[in-house]
Amino acid sequence: MRDDAALVDCRPGYRLVATVDQAVEGVHFLPDDPPDLVAKKLLRRNLSDLAAMGAVPRHYLLTTALPKSRGDEWLQGFAEGLADDQRRFGIALLGGDSTSTPGPTALTLTALGEIAAGTELRRSGAKPGDRVWVSGAIGDAFLGLQVLRGGFPQLAPEHRAELIARYRLPDPRVALGPRLVGIANALIDVSDGLVADLGHVCEESGVAATIRLASVPLSDAAGLLVADNPALRAQLATGGDDYELLFTAPPERSPVIAQLSASLDLPIVEIGSIESGAGVRLLDADGQPVALASGGWQHF
Amino acid sequence: MRDDAALVDCRPGYRLVATVDQAVEGVHFLPDDPPDLVAKKLLRRNLSDLAAMGAVPRHYLLTTALPKSRGDEWLQGFAEGLADDQRRFGIALLGGDSTSTPGPTALTLTALGEIAAGTELRRSGAKPGDRVWVSGAIGDAFLGLQVLRGGFPQLAPEHRAELIARYRLPDPRVALGPRLVGIANALIDVSDGLVADLGHVCEESGVAATIRLASVPLSDAAGLLVADNPALRAQLATGGDDYELLFTAPPERSPVIAQLSASLDLPIVEIGSIESGAGVRLLDADGQPVALASGGWQHF
Repeated sequence: MRDDAALVDCRPGYRLVATVDQAVEGVHFLPDDPPDLVAKKLLRRNLSDLAAMGAVPRHYLLTTALPKSRGDEWLQGFAEGLADDQRRFGIALLGGDSTSTPGPTALTLTALGEIAAGTELRRSGAKPGDRVWVSGAIGDAFLGLQVLRGGFPQLAPEHRAELIARYRLPDPRVALGPRLVGIANALIDVSDGLVADLGHVCEESGVAATIRLASVPLSDAAGLLVADNPALRAQLATGGDDYELLFTAPPERSPVIAQLSASLDLPIVEIGSIESGAGVRLLDADGQPVALASGGWQHF
Repeated sequence: MRDDAALVDCRPGYRLVATVDQAVEGVHFLPDDPPDLVAKKLLRRNLSDLAAMGAVPRHYLLTTALPKSRGDEWLQGFAEGLADDQRRFGIALLGGDSTSTPGPTALTLTALGEIAAGTELRRSGAKPGDRVWVSGAIGDAFLGLQVLRGGFPQLAPEHRAELIARYRLPDPRVALGPRLVGIANALIDVSDGLVADLGHVCEESGVAATIRLASVPLSDAAGLLVADNPALRAQLATGGDDYELLFTAPPERSPVIAQLSASLDLPIVEIGSIESGAGVRLLDADGQPVALASGGWQHF
């Protein structure tokens, strides 16, 4: 860094949005994971957090704690991953810090975005009568991790590869988040799992939610696995690492959401509704409550 | 965190200043170091970086990666240290992330400050003819680490305790930094060591510096050790972890610097001058160049 700290310009009428995430070897990634993907996933998890406020990403700061066993090759791959995604998402490295460590590789990334003051989307805005919407597909990252561990040998190689890619490299919905300003009442990204994250919205908003499990969107690969094993569907809704956006909006905004989905070429589907009360209920195709083993998802 | 990311207000006409530092067990602190001091030192290193831009600290984000062996007691001490220093320095925790780790405790802290746009102080502003000034005393942290390792048994217990305290708990010059706006041409904090950090200023400014070693300010304890062993004086100038402010300013600003020193009750002494050229020269009391073993300082 050419100075002790980095300068960040703030446009008049805008606020900065700040978020930080970690990636620790053995917790968030495996020692042999490709370093460019480790870099991108860490960055994209943060970009997903910014999108979940409706913010546009601008800058980031990075720290690396690397054991001596991590050679230059690893670091070069890591840097190439960051450079790729800087271009893709139009963000710049502001500064950072690097150190050696006697332990596993430990990385942190602080992302800064901006948003017009007063337009920030929060978890706390859901209202009874809102519908619940989710982007993309749910459960692929959960399945991708199982595939990496040798699960689902019956799946075709291309489907296995797709699920692994969705686990290793999320596609944060940076274009969708800012477009939800003026549409969504509450917004969150799905990182802990659909049910757990909707639970956060309910808690912060003081409301309840009901989800129709059959409406939760699945990829082709996930759909095949669920066809074989219908009980898997509820697991996918409690998986995690999806980095899709989950939001609530009044029913009359359905047409504009459909337009937005078409213009971004990104599926956005209605999966349930908000009511007064507390907690998240999942209903099966017959309208019967589905029991959940756990409300969330733990890192391996 | 109640939302995915934290909002930061920017006052019109101001910029944000961002910096990040890490503390890894076994690199930046020892396993048995008191947790409140580990917290405060990490925070204060960042505050020193903000002061070195002339910025006023406002917010911070924190990540913790903790092994299971770190019990609640350690975390409570760590949190108490942060709470103390939040009050002392008038800053607020914006958000963060915590995880477990199979390795040593690893902490990062991102600090955000603000400064009126256009008044930022940089390393690159030093001009030939400037004088070089430094706050406080140099070398205590270096000596404190030696004392912790059993060095300097001849020192009185109170002096040993003072040096250890200066190593464990820097006193970042947060009041001085912003007051140097309009006075200093270049500013940096002394973290790598006086010579190395002045070297950064010279490199970024395209100038040379000459320091009179006898003018470098020492604490009473350091002065006693240097009286016993004059060769130690040059080591102190290449030590590190001082977190004093080092700046250059035109000679005619000496009176206002003397006033500032008095009003802050903080010694600020002139130790040398800036010339055209490159590099840092140290002169002994006879005006002879002092050879340096190394230009900087390494963590243990």
